[in-house]
Amino acid sequence: MKNVLFAAAVCTFSFVLSAADVTLPAPEKKGGISLNEALNLRKTVRSYKADQLSAKQISQLFWSAFGVTRADGKRTAPTARNCQEITLYLLTAKGAWIYAPKKNQMVQVSSKDLRSVAGRYKAPAYIAIVSNRKLSGSTPRSLHFASMDVGYVSQNIYLAATAMKLGTCAIGQIVKPEVLERELKLTDSEKVLLVHSVGFPK
Amino acid sequence: MKNVLFAAAVCTFSFVLSAADVTLPAPEKKGGISLNEALNLRKTVRSYKADQLSAKQISQLFWSAFGVTRADGKRTAPTARNCQEITLYLLTAKGAWIYAPKKNQMVQVSSKDLRSVAGRYKAPAYIAIVSNRKLSGSTPRSLHFASMDVGYVSQNIYLAATAMKLGTCAIGQIVKPEVLERELKLTDSEKVLLVHSVGFPK
Repeated sequence: MKNVLFAAAVCTFSFVLSAADVTLPAPEKKGGISLNEALNLRKTVRSYKADQLSAKQISQLFWSAFGVTRADGKRTAPTARNCQEITLYLLTAKGAWIYAPKKNQMVQVSSKDLRSVAGRYKAPAYIAIVSNRKLSGSTPRSLHFASMDVGYVSQNIYLAATAMKLGTCAIGQIVKPEVLERELKLTDSEKVLLVHSVGFPK
Repeated sequence: MKNVLFAAAVCTFSFVLSAADVTLPAPEKKGGISLNEALNLRKTVRSYKADQLSAKQISQLFWSAFGVTRADGKRTAPTARNCQEITLYLLTAKGAWIYAPKKNQMVQVSSKDLRSVAGRYKAPAYIAIVSNRKLSGSTPRSLHFASMDVGYVSQNIYLAATAMKLGTCAIGQIVKPEVLERELKLTDSEKVLLVHSVGFPK
């Protein structure tokens, strides 16, 4: 059984990195290390092995970050005034995908490797956190809340990476935000506010 | 053994609410519900029973929020550029305390009940998240990071409350921020950016 699961995971994994649109394996909603342990072990990791993440790990990371938990559309992270203005993108060597949380799918938006315009660390994957100002509002107060909301999602990524023995680093200084935003085909109201490098710690 | 622990907890609990400075019981750094389950069950709760929190619960909440995890002073939540500009306060019927994370202590700063100037929900306790602009900087970019950092801490509070079967609500619209800031004896560079009501869900 273990071997079958492993084969399935590897299979889906190559699929993630080559196919346009991919339904991810279901995330684990129970089990794994305790919250207390994840909080205690959380740290920033900036140096990674070349190994790729599995589809299962990608699914778990994105669901933990800002996945749907209930039929009413509620998420793993709150957003101020329930604006739900955040969208997540996966960047790998093979391209970029937008995370569709309701269907637990990745939808390809680019076939370019955009990792080096996101952050300076060599990592098999990056997560880009995009905030839509049309949904959050753009007054100073709204932007304060929008930034806070990015923190909620980013902390979920830190804790989920810790639980999976992956390393991650939140990077506010995006290398070429205008290139990244163009290649991700964002609208004028959408901004990449933070990226996370993710991989197996060296 | 259970009874002894319970008696100790009740004892420390009355101590928290009456004494000026209190060393909290040590937080649990292992055990408890899994991260995945906490993420899946996380939600906002706005209505609470009158029951008070125990010293153990207060300790766990504050350590989870922004406690010290390692000898080098690293915390359960990151801060951008490691500014560590955040300080936490506990507000109850008996007064207000500043959380001293290295010593795991609460140091009383007011004997007034400040809960109603923090938020509109009736809760046995509030947590106030204070950001020091002298440490974070005050350019628009620094303030973006400072707001993000509040989100990290706030998500930890949500997850820790979930793990302890407590309810919490993050409140950005503070009732009387200037009164709260004066009574907490904050400096001009310190601002309450967010408060959390906390209690047993009704």
